[in-house]
Amino acid sequence: MSNTLGKLFRISIFGESHGPAVGCVIDGLPSGKKMDTDRINQRLNQRKATSGGLTTGRIEPDTYQILSGLYKAHTSGTPLTVCFENTNTRSQDYTKFETVFRPSHADYSGHKKYYGFNDPRGGGHFSARLTAPIVFAGALAEQLLDEMGISIWVQIQAVGGISGKSFLNLTEAEVLAIDQSKYQMQESCEASMIKEVQDASAEKDSVGGLVECMITGVPAGFGDPFFNSIESELSKAMFSIPGVKGIEFGSGFDLAHMKGSEANDRFIKDADGEIKTQSNHNGGISGGVSNGMPVVFRCVFKPTASIGKTQETLDFKSGETTELVIEGRHDPAIVMRAPAVVRAMVALVFYDLYLVDRGIYGKTRKC
Amino acid sequence: MSNTLGKLFRISIFGESHGPAVGCVIDGLPSGKKMDTDRINQRLNQRKATSGGLTTGRIEPDTYQILSGLYKAHTSGTPLTVCFENTNTRSQDYTKFETVFRPSHADYSGHKKYYGFNDPRGGGHFSARLTAPIVFAGALAEQLLDEMGISIWVQIQAVGGISGKSFLNLTEAEVLAIDQSKYQMQESCEASMIKEVQDASAEKDSVGGLVECMITGVPAGFGDPFFNSIESELSKAMFSIPGVKGIEFGSGFDLAHMKGSEANDRFIKDADGEIKTQSNHNGGISGGVSNGMPVVFRCVFKPTASIGKTQETLDFKSGETTELVIEGRHDPAIVMRAPAVVRAMVALVFYDLYLVDRGIYGKTRKC
Amino acid sequence: MSNTLGKLFRISIFGESHGPAVGCVIDGLPSGKKMDTDRINQRLNQRKATSGGLTTGRIEPDTYQILSGLYKAHTSGTPLTVCFENTNTRSQDYTKFETVFRPSHADYSGHKKYYGFNDPRGGGHFSARLTAPIVFAGALAEQLLDEMGISIWVQIQAVGGISGKSFLNLTEAEVLAIDQSKYQMQESCEASMIKEVQDASAEKDSVGGLVECMITGVPAGFGDPFFNSIESELSKAMFSIPGVKGIEFGSGFDLAHMKGSEANDRFIKDADGEIKTQSNHNGGISGGVSNGMPVVFRCVFKPTASIGKTQETLDFKSGETTELVIEGRHDPAIVMRAPAVVRAMVALVFYDLYLVDRGIYGKTRKC
Amino acid sequence: MSNTLGKLFRISIFGESHGPAVGCVIDGLPSGKKMDTDRINQRLNQRKATSGGLTTGRIEPDTYQILSGLYKAHTSGTPLTVCFENTNTRSQDYTKFETVFRPSHADYSGHKKYYGFNDPRGGGHFSARLTAPIVFAGALAEQLLDEMGISIWVQIQAVGGISGKSFLNLTEAEVLAIDQSKYQMQESCEASMIKEVQDASAEKDSVGGLVECMITGVPAGFGDPFFNSIESELSKAMFSIPGVKGIEFGSGFDLAHMKGSEANDRFIKDADGEIKTQSNHNGGISGGVSNGMPVVFRCVFKPTASIGKTQETLDFKSGETTELVIEGRHDPAIVMRAPAVVRAMVALVFYDLYLVDRGIYGKTRKC
Repeated sequence: MSNTLGKLFRISIFGESHGPAVGCVIDGLPSGKKMDTDRINQRLNQRKATSGGLTTGRIEPDTYQILSGLYKAHTSGTPLTVCFENTNTRSQDYTKFETVFRPSHADYSGHKKYYGFNDPRGGGHFSARLTAPIVFAGALAEQLLDEMGISIWVQIQAVGGISGKSFLNLTEAEVLAIDQSKYQMQESCEASMIKEVQDASAEKDSVGGLVECMITGVPAGFGDPFFNSIESELSKAMFSIPGVKGIEFGSGFDLAHMKGSEANDRFIKDADGEIKTQSNHNGGISGGVSNGMPVVFRCVFKPTASIGKTQETLDFKSGETTELVIEGRHDPAIVMRAPAVVRAMVALVFYDLYLVDRGIYGKTRKC
Repeated sequence: MSNTLGKLFRISIFGESHGPAVGCVIDGLPSGKKMDTDRINQRLNQRKATSGGLTTGRIEPDTYQILSGLYKAHTSGTPLTVCFENTNTRSQDYTKFETVFRPSHADYSGHKKYYGFNDPRGGGHFSARLTAPIVFAGALAEQLLDEMGISIWVQIQAVGGISGKSFLNLTEAEVLAIDQSKYQMQESCEASMIKEVQDASAEKDSVGGLVECMITGVPAGFGDPFFNSIESELSKAMFSIPGVKGIEFGSGFDLAHMKGSEANDRFIKDADGEIKTQSNHNGGISGGVSNGMPVVFRCVFKPTASIGKTQETLDFKSGETTELVIEGRHDPAIVMRAPAVVRAMVALVFYDLYLVDRGIYGKTRKC
Repeated sequence: MSNTLGKLFRISIFGESHGPAVGCVIDGLPSGKKMDTDRINQRLNQRKATSGGLTTGRIEPDTYQILSGLYKAHTSGTPLTVCFENTNTRSQDYTKFETVFRPSHADYSGHKKYYGFNDPRGGGHFSARLTAPIVFAGALAEQLLDEMGISIWVQIQAVGGISGKSFLNLTEAEVLAIDQSKYQMQESCEASMIKEVQDASAEKDSVGGLVECMITGVPAGFGDPFFNSIESELSKAMFSIPGVKGIEFGSGFDLAHMKGSEANDRFIKDADGEIKTQSNHNGGISGGVSNGMPVVFRCVFKPTASIGKTQETLDFKSGETTELVIEGRHDPAIVMRAPAVVRAMVALVFYDLYLVDRGIYGKTRKC
Repeated sequence: MSNTLGKLFRISIFGESHGPAVGCVIDGLPSGKKMDTDRINQRLNQRKATSGGLTTGRIEPDTYQILSGLYKAHTSGTPLTVCFENTNTRSQDYTKFETVFRPSHADYSGHKKYYGFNDPRGGGHFSARLTAPIVFAGALAEQLLDEMGISIWVQIQAVGGISGKSFLNLTEAEVLAIDQSKYQMQESCEASMIKEVQDASAEKDSVGGLVECMITGVPAGFGDPFFNSIESELSKAMFSIPGVKGIEFGSGFDLAHMKGSEANDRFIKDADGEIKTQSNHNGGISGGVSNGMPVVFRCVFKPTASIGKTQETLDFKSGETTELVIEGRHDPAIVMRAPAVVRAMVALVFYDLYLVDRGIYGKTRKC
């Protein structure tokens, strides 16, 4: 089940960075939905490499071909397959890494896993290029979640030394402004975050960051206790994104140092008579199940492993220490392209959660 | 699939805190393994409520009955079912919570999910009592991992304001000492951590904490890119544990603020000529696949939601604000019982990873 | 996944014939359904050993205990576990089979599969005793299918040399009469079928038979092309029943010898203006998907492998030919107890099909 | 999970008959296997339309493109994707069927399932064209089964009124001769079987048939009791093949009329001292588990639903009876192309069974 995510709404991914194509097969789509190509293109653009030294030099046109499952512009209900051809590949960049595995890349672990037979060019199947079909599928899921009033918001909350506020502390207007922004950043941080990336780039180095996500319009009652908790499902999906090394919900790691009397989210009625909790330290999830508050989590993205700076490492052939300079095209901060991928994964998970719940109960939960 | 974890080695849990029993069915056990009851009892004891005001007043004997899958003390290869009868239940403690849902508990989200039909006594199916069969199953898996040279180490790394060192910075002797300790703590922190718990208890409050886990003897090549990354599988399992709100691998959230040149794990040869990485910022996992270094992660446990201190919250019947005092038996720090559960979940995940890999490749990876 | 059936509505079975208990865990039940114990008892009785030499001498009371998932007589929405204790076991009957595997039983294949560690008493986990919890779960599913207007009809269509008509050729009144009959037989065949069983019994022999099943009220549109065709799902479930060696839908094996012009089911409008097909050679399924006609299939049950007659076979210890007389309690015709099990399996499959379809489309299909 | 088959070795299919392409994604392949293109082409040819009026006029070149998972002619261990472009489509043939659903086709059930949004051209996703990628994947699995000494044999055992012997009654030489024959037929029946097809074709009619399959080299111990019995897994796969309406193992439906004393397979030692059963009424499977004898089963294929002969049916638009003549390209007997597909499905199922068993036990069973 290694290449498949989901129970009723399932995506199966395939492809290598420098092979003929990457893509995915989407199963569990209802028939009769007009595919929203504008949204798909918007999300693919948000993921795509952009100019200005912020992201990789590899500019793929990201044009896709639908091989199945679409008829007269509507979903036909059968498996929908999308392909992104790989056109802009420069495989010669990677030949030297066959004996000098790049530090903190999957070159070595992949080499061991596949007993040396995997395609090493551009990371092969480990490449973030695979996130293009994931973003495509996520945009479709997002379109379907719209119908249920569920919305996903993402922001780059930190880059290197610069951090912005959590969604938990932002006004609705501020959230909307982030959504309209070029990089999914708070206006007050944008300049300094970009400078952080540019500085890293100038030093032939890279830098890490945080993406925060908030899902609104989630009625209480989704998810399950234990193995299919919302946290379980979301974390499984998030750790599928290359570069993610941590996730926390609500107040997350701060809870280690808090007292129950501080951390408990007391129930209140708001002005409209709706039940809420005053705080949201639990990030909208209690016992694995949504509690009606916005679902909020944060993911950390490590700094890009590929750096132009000279690194000392091992030549596996000679067994000697060697110096490595990675000249290929690479982003100074993968976090810059991450919001679109996080959003897509969340859409995949929530649409599936929704289908499973609707299957078992035959009802549509309301906020 | 809500109550099942695993692909080839699968556990399906059941039960409510105040129902007849909790338990699980374990599928995918090989036949002919002599069940190590000593280890099972050791792990159940580590999980169990202990004296001294550190954990709940509810002392279950935790005796279990095997209903199937064991023949002449050996696994028969068929589904193994274990039951823990619920004997020490005081359901009257919970009746008042039917209109006043306890803050930060699953009472409200569970009530909504099950449309009011779930068993509310003691949290019902959301209860941490369900971790007893999980610890049982984990002990079996741990026994089988022993044969492969894979070992799991856990420690309480933080309680409230007190934090100890990471496994990444401990000597082998220190790791062994923690393993032998009563509470899976570093000797230097133990007294102050226990005081932190006792202080919270004295204030009728609770406190959160961190559990760290290290898995050694993991050969490079386990796991998968994307959806079945080791991080995905472990995080899914960890967020199944009641009270976990975050997980990070290796240097985790610190990576947000690091440069690539700092965060990259350069390859070296150690004194024995074995390939290692000098640092382990990636926590033993690259591209979702083990890289031969110890797998290291940390989970945050929120403070126990049940506190004796007076809390303001909502009476759902009257719609008015009310004061709530929870007098039932509860731990001042769930993190105290967490190491046994984290260890069990890790064992379940790794044994399954092992079976899947062995199935596909027919080889036993070596460190 | 060996002990689990279903996607959203899932049952996981466990137990050995002479172990402490057999049972199952049912996941995916909606909450708030009052459990229909009358129906459960009716179905368990239909499956149970009955007097008159027709079925086994082992009379289990078939009393069950609910361990979880039921609260105040209603489903709570959490995993429901049922146990049937094994009380009436005479294990000494089976010791001699440890070196002389019974012909056409699973003794030998089970011994090989589990490398000799399985419980051989009474067939262990291979025992038809496991169908008790399956019938329990099926009765619950049947209750839920009632709400959707889906009904399941079963009959013993053949025993040894005696065959009755297919449901395809019976009137509604005749179908109802079978449903009310003691053995789920057509009145016109009952006496001769029973005589067939009694004759076999008198000869210390056994006899095979056919069970036919018809599902009415199935709207067009359930199922999937290819791997989850209704035929695929039903056959998978039917071959899980001990003793089933064949299944055919509609005209089944007769289709090998038919022309397309005979076999095609032409569409017509009936008197009420509803679309039907004139014939039902396809058994209500086209392209794996229900077509609105009754779903009709037939299963063959082999003669009971345990016979009192002397059989020549091999002593595995000595390697010599030996004579075997099986004196244990056994049915002369397992087909006599099969209708309840077939009905249960069908209910499990169709309720799951229903949930999956409702999840993806959010609509309830109508006939 | 509608488009996926398998647990560890999984194939996910996609495509419509007249869409851009059909194909599949294969997950769970080990790395480092040199793809045997000769075998793949042989199997694709056996499946392909052939001349002489025996199969459809639609001659697809059946050239395929590998999109992922292959590197330097070897499997890379990552998902392998294969595409068959649809080039020879004549969609205008199908427009009239939008109001006159073809009898015994999936036009109507598909229309209902997908609420009218599916691609109706050439049967869309229901098309037997989807068996091309299945045959491709099966050929890969067959290559891997070779290494384990497991061989698959198929024959057309009946066409219309002509029936040949069962594999159970053929010599090894006769089995080999069938394998080498053009149509996978016994020499003694070939001419009359072909005449049967040609006669049907001349009458603008079609005819059904039987395919029998035998798997040799299967050691005792594969499969599981109950839901994952070998019969369950094989039947699920067989009923995924368009046109299959029945399956029986060993003596199959004849067992209904047999006595236990006739049907039991007594154990013997053969000349080489190996344990066998004298007869094979159980088709090599006892209790769902292989017993060391050849696995033998039979599938019935209905006559092709598309016939040139005039059929009375319903015009769904007018609600009136109408006459239908299907002039499109179609086979007079789908059974002619079935052996390759049956073989492929068996290979997929057995290779997966093998991986699961090897995962759990870490041993390779021997015959």
